Amino acid sequence: MTHPLFEKHRATLEGALQAIATRGYWSPYSEMPSPKVYGETAAADGKAAFEAHLGKNFELNQPGQSGWGGREASPYGVALDVRYPVCDPDALVAAGQAAMKGWQAVGAAGRTGICLDILDRLYCQSFEMGHAVMMTTGQGWMMAFQAGAAHALDRGLEAVAYAWREQSFVPAHSTWEKPQGKNPALVMKKHYEIVGRGVGLVIGCGTFPTWNTYPGLFAALATGNAVIVKPHSNAILPAAITVRTIRAVLAENGIDPDLVTLCVAEQRSVTQALATHPGVKSVDFTGSNAFGQWLLEHCKQAQVYAELAGVNNIVVESTNAYKAMLGNLAFTLSLYSGQMCTTTQALIVPAGGIDTDEGHKSFDEVCADLAAAVQKFLSKPEVACAVLGAIQSSATAERVDLANSGALGRVVLASQKLANPEFPGADVRTPVLLAVDAADEAAYMEERFGPISFLVRAADAQAAIALSERIVRTHGALTVGLYSTKSDVIDAMTEASWRGQVALSINLTGGVFVNQSAAFSDYHGTGGNPAANASYCDSAFVANRFRVVQRRYHV
Amino acid sequence: MTHPLFEKHRATLEGALQAIATRGYWSPYSEMPSPKVYGETAAADGKAAFEAHLGKNFELNQPGQSGWGGREASPYGVALDVRYPVCDPDALVAAGQAAMKGWQAVGAAGRTGICLDILDRLYCQSFEMGHAVMMTTGQGWMMAFQAGAAHALDRGLEAVAYAWREQSFVPAHSTWEKPQGKNPALVMKKHYEIVGRGVGLVIGCGTFPTWNTYPGLFAALATGNAVIVKPHSNAILPAAITVRTIRAVLAENGIDPDLVTLCVAEQRSVTQALATHPGVKSVDFTGSNAFGQWLLEHCKQAQVYAELAGVNNIVVESTNAYKAMLGNLAFTLSLYSGQMCTTTQALIVPAGGIDTDEGHKSFDEVCADLAAAVQKFLSKPEVACAVLGAIQSSATAERVDLANSGALGRVVLASQKLANPEFPGADVRTPVLLAVDAADEAAYMEERFGPISFLVRAADAQAAIALSERIVRTHGALTVGLYSTKSDVIDAMTEASWRGQVALSINLTGGVFVNQSAAFSDYHGTGGNPAANASYCDSAFVANRFRVVQRRYHV
Repeated sequence: MTHPLFEKHRATLEGALQAIATRGYWSPYSEMPSPKVYGETAAADGKAAFEAHLGKNFELNQPGQSGWGGREASPYGVALDVRYPVCDPDALVAAGQAAMKGWQAVGAAGRTGICLDILDRLYCQSFEMGHAVMMTTGQGWMMAFQAGAAHALDRGLEAVAYAWREQSFVPAHSTWEKPQGKNPALVMKKHYEIVGRGVGLVIGCGTFPTWNTYPGLFAALATGNAVIVKPHSNAILPAAITVRTIRAVLAENGIDPDLVTLCVAEQRSVTQALATHPGVKSVDFTGSNAFGQWLLEHCKQAQVYAELAGVNNIVVESTNAYKAMLGNLAFTLSLYSGQMCTTTQALIVPAGGIDTDEGHKSFDEVCADLAAAVQKFLSKPEVACAVLGAIQSSATAERVDLANSGALGRVVLASQKLANPEFPGADVRTPVLLAVDAADEAAYMEERFGPISFLVRAADAQAAIALSERIVRTHGALTVGLYSTKSDVIDAMTEASWRGQVALSINLTGGVFVNQSAAFSDYHGTGGNPAANASYCDSAFVANRFRVVQRRYHV
Repeated sequence: MTHPLFEKHRATLEGALQAIATRGYWSPYSEMPSPKVYGETAAADGKAAFEAHLGKNFELNQPGQSGWGGREASPYGVALDVRYPVCDPDALVAAGQAAMKGWQAVGAAGRTGICLDILDRLYCQSFEMGHAVMMTTGQGWMMAFQAGAAHALDRGLEAVAYAWREQSFVPAHSTWEKPQGKNPALVMKKHYEIVGRGVGLVIGCGTFPTWNTYPGLFAALATGNAVIVKPHSNAILPAAITVRTIRAVLAENGIDPDLVTLCVAEQRSVTQALATHPGVKSVDFTGSNAFGQWLLEHCKQAQVYAELAGVNNIVVESTNAYKAMLGNLAFTLSLYSGQMCTTTQALIVPAGGIDTDEGHKSFDEVCADLAAAVQKFLSKPEVACAVLGAIQSSATAERVDLANSGALGRVVLASQKLANPEFPGADVRTPVLLAVDAADEAAYMEERFGPISFLVRAADAQAAIALSERIVRTHGALTVGLYSTKSDVIDAMTEASWRGQVALSINLTGGVFVNQSAAFSDYHGTGGNPAANASYCDSAFVANRFRVVQRRYHV
């Protein structure tokens, strides 16, 4: 059983299937906001589409609406004043459940084709989405355009490809014929129906409202489930745009649009009730450890896929490209003011310093040189504002102030407030670097989200690797890195990364950064350490979101 | 990277991969205890091998041994007197963890090849295993030989095939080359290492010590994990034979045999401590709701795959083969005295009776005719003893006595104790049939494990289907059935089975029975209702047992 949209997008699907199998570079979505790709008027049209939302009610025609809510405050200080439908969560669950019957009936190919079409439609909204992501998260424009649109679509497509691959293994029917010696064979016809588990709840975060939402959203949807998207209260617009487009495509294809709805709730208790609703069978969550642990402990009726906090770290043991290493690290620490779940928080350096192509560097020299590299990288205000973006939440700003005060360690580089001429209301902060001893665990051994990093003095290389492993195993990490010219050190760190189950980047000195994760090639999170219990994307991320129900009879 | 044993068993693996994709009949293991297949001396050799265990210490050379334990009482009243090593659970976990490094290093192909060789070696022990299963569980010989050996090996092989398929999707390495316009492309080399989650604990049941253990055991093992097998205290020998063979094959292949160990523990507290051990990352469990729920609530550190109790049921609406239907049901209810997790407990019949090829039959006639069919089927003592086997536990015998007393409903057919001339100590019971009204939920709406079934009088066909669905959704079921000649009734029951997520057998009147589940073709459990949170076997059963750890660097 196929579907017109499955055939229409077959080449894209096949490209994605090939990509997840070979894991080379691939994407059908352009990350460059170029008129050649998107069309001459795309940039202006997209900006206008974004601006048309401002100051208005964002109509979605969802069931159970009781009023309007949502009060996003742009980190850029721009007035958004968009109001979103507030709906009874029970009504959203019931409507989602009712819509699942038709979604099941369209089959895996139909669901896959419709999901691919949704992604295609969202791709056409890339500029609109870029502005929505930028203005709600504080990301710089280029990052918002890339991570908010193309890269998020990559992750969504990746989930659809995994979901299709797993579902395509289940035959629609079989004939089972068991020989019985001289007697006639036993013959049965069997049918295998793929059935979604139930309503999926996808809880978004405030920093990456599409990139961290699309994997769970499309994994749940493609495998036959209804989805309720509960965005972070400060990043609703990107989710609302997404949900509206999905609902439109569903309706065009004869599927009840209430299959996918937006839940806007101010109180955490609403989200908690929804997450523990008997009809909700999966919860995808990106956010704090506190609420993530609450979900893992309380959502007994649902499978929870959680990306939580961690303490990403890099061991700096030696390098044959000192300047390039410092430049790479400076970019990593500066990008979006460190407000990425993959940004390095701890740089672990042997107390005796490191060997480099520029001679031996003491621990203090490494600290000073990294500070200088960050300063140099951010010395042009226009570069600084473009890279840093704005601080997304006041809690992050407070953490920066605390770090600046010296309470957490010796300040190697103080964070500075910068002015953004285009957005006078933006809270722009440069990274703060602190030097601490490995023993000062209270300072660096918990996630301090934002542009706050520690240069941690370890006894030697072996101790640095052991510390990295212990951090990963006890506090979790999405990324670790290593700089070393020695194969035995690289081997030791590799084995530590296997034991800690964390992705390792080795000697990054060019245009790839430890905090970047490319869909189809890089697994984002392993699911094997406390920072996340799932990975974007692998079979495990999709396989348990549907069940196979068989029936059999004699023929 | 391949492995000699992978190549040796490649044809078997390819057969299994083809079978799970097409789901027709297939097995590489003969279920018939025929000398032509197994060899002229296999039966005698296997019996001798079994008998050689009796009255002896079962040596395994495991770490942390403090003594000998295990006190199996054969349901056939035969003295077994085998003693098993009692080992410190912490020592078993530590030894398993240490052994995982070498197991990871041999790679997915190596693990798969070694697992296939283990299955091959266990296949050669089929007669020995048949006797061990028969004498510990009370199964009849033919069932013990088939379900204990060939069918269990099928399920193990199925898990290995799924595990291989998922692991084989992960490339060992890739080259990631991202174009940069006019600049040189970014090029990275990436490696992807498959890493087991940690030690797997597989908790067996007293009735199917291999069939219900092999899926989790081989799924965990093939995906790179150590495994501790904790058998039911009354069915240790089949697990001990399995573990000894696995350890031998591992050692032959240079793998630390402590990768797989046997944990014999009298107290539940030992099992609880082991199941919540930080080093234990997966728990496979077959057994009671009480302990299963305890595991699901307390094993936060592990993924729990649980097969629990349920209330399997059949809706009897109409038939065009009344006699054959009754014969089929009589066999289903009698086989191993109903001590199967798939045996039907509730037969739901419309109050107005059913249309059949022998005319309309009232509810009471259906009851009487089924009772007569069971009696007829079991009228020859040698057939009865072969089919019924023996009652596995005194708790089951007590449930039969309670049902016989009339306390749970009108006794349509009382259970009888039969003598088994070969095994005078065997407690042999025929099925008890009770007639109840649908309103008598306290009687039939909980699992009453053993040869106890209810004929439940529902208002009409629609009410019968609705009751079946409600039973499945609230109490779970591994199997439901339907007898109907009407397509609208079949459609309604099919849709109910999708909502309840339960496997449906329709109009079984021949040599296939609702309580039979064939590996490679039938999914055992859907994982979508309270009777089980996982299925034998699907991608979800294996995909989350390993993680992929990547590393990347510029080239």
